[in-house]
Amino acid sequence: MKKETVKNIVVIGSGNVASGLAPLFQNAGYKIMQIYSRNSKSAEYLAKILSVPYITDLRKIEKNAWLYLIAVKDDSVKGLVMSMGKNPGLMVHTSGSIDMDVFDRYSENHGVFYPLQTFSADTALSVDKFPICIEANTLVNLEKLKTIASSIAGRENVYKITSHQRKIIHLAAVFACNFTNHFYTIAQSILQKEHLPFDLLKPLILETAQKIKSLSPSGSQTGPAVRNDNKIMETQLRLLSDSPEYKQLYKIISRSIVKAKEVTQQ
Amino acid sequence: MKKETVKNIVVIGSGNVASGLAPLFQNAGYKIMQIYSRNSKSAEYLAKILSVPYITDLRKIEKNAWLYLIAVKDDSVKGLVMSMGKNPGLMVHTSGSIDMDVFDRYSENHGVFYPLQTFSADTALSVDKFPICIEANTLVNLEKLKTIASSIAGRENVYKITSHQRKIIHLAAVFACNFTNHFYTIAQSILQKEHLPFDLLKPLILETAQKIKSLSPSGSQTGPAVRNDNKIMETQLRLLSDSPEYKQLYKIISRSIVKAKEVTQQ
Repeated sequence: MKKETVKNIVVIGSGNVASGLAPLFQNAGYKIMQIYSRNSKSAEYLAKILSVPYITDLRKIEKNAWLYLIAVKDDSVKGLVMSMGKNPGLMVHTSGSIDMDVFDRYSENHGVFYPLQTFSADTALSVDKFPICIEANTLVNLEKLKTIASSIAGRENVYKITSHQRKIIHLAAVFACNFTNHFYTIAQSILQKEHLPFDLLKPLILETAQKIKSLSPSGSQTGPAVRNDNKIMETQLRLLSDSPEYKQLYKIISRSIVKAKEVTQQ
Repeated sequence: MKKETVKNIVVIGSGNVASGLAPLFQNAGYKIMQIYSRNSKSAEYLAKILSVPYITDLRKIEKNAWLYLIAVKDDSVKGLVMSMGKNPGLMVHTSGSIDMDVFDRYSENHGVFYPLQTFSADTALSVDKFPICIEANTLVNLEKLKTIASSIAGRENVYKITSHQRKIIHLAAVFACNFTNHFYTIAQSILQKEHLPFDLLKPLILETAQKIKSLSPSGSQTGPAVRNDNKIMETQLRLLSDSPEYKQLYKIISRSIVKAKEVTQQ
């Protein structure tokens, strides 16, 4: 066992996920050997926060790290894996949608380390514990990932899943996170047009999210659509008459809410 | 000044809004004289929690309350106001979408008391402060509402708005609260179909909502659509191939996210 390589991590990428995870690894006692990113500005920024070196030339990558965490855009993963060359270290990507077999021809030890959380540059997480979904090509590698994920998220938050399950979870996350966030944006733009502050909606948005802790979302659905209140829905559609896009969204989602209620009541 | 009528409130309705607001009035030192509801079961339940009497016969309503808080379904407000008969007390409804003039022919003192929050039966609020939007037919009544709203929500959370502004706020709230909650439901059903627990998504949902406290939602949009990652979007649409409804929602919302980004970048 090469003692010096144990727990050494090379972080590949300097975007939101890399910037969100890297400090958690450090806090859990792992050593970040190096940051690699094509983007020298964000690489430098992240490296400075972590007090570690960074590189922008892939050829200078450390060869003997224990873990290579590839946290780059989905469409860059494959090219990166190909360019890195053979390496005995454990290679993982953090993507919700890329199959583990992207590593097959390039790495003997590999897996997936998918954090089910949304990270933003320069903003610490409000919710500190979150699930980490792992997958690995061997039992030994799976155990390694389980250990590292547990030390970040707690054992109860580590899930062993297949590539297919991960894609399903990612899809569900797009609805629950990306799409809801876009609706915050739409709500803000509706208010802005009438010079009303977005602050008005913040307690409501927070409470709507908090409710899922104790109530099933289908059971706690409120609003005109679930009440089948056509009069209000017509009034609201009229208010949207100068925005065909929002009007269409309003109609289709309201219809989906009505339908979901019918299914529940059957 | 009839001392005995000061601060006495009759609550009309026993649904989520009535049940959510009534305890807040009590905590702020107001006296609930009576609960009226057509639904004797929920009226009794609420009355018991508050230790106050309830009635199901509108003719037995107290005549000398200081405030009548009408928290019933939107399409019941008008009929109720007509049935109550003339009364010098201040009458308010809590609806986001009904014009204040619903009271015009029936009450000399009236207004609107619109809490911008979502209430659920049997669940205390996690977010205790929220905006209350008020409107009144006279300055005196506006001052009364301002006082009572301030004692519940704090002066900084009381907004004087017009009926039109209230409708806009309600519309924005439908996007930010009702529609997002429906997407939690969809996410849950996507997971359930593959026997995956909804718990997986809870930290992500909470973090997505918490982010609005410090970041503009348009600036913190993440996911395949905002990255214009067509490959992932196509993969996700394929996963939805047995649900034309979710597929259509996915397409339209993704398109809206792409469009919003283009507008921001202009």
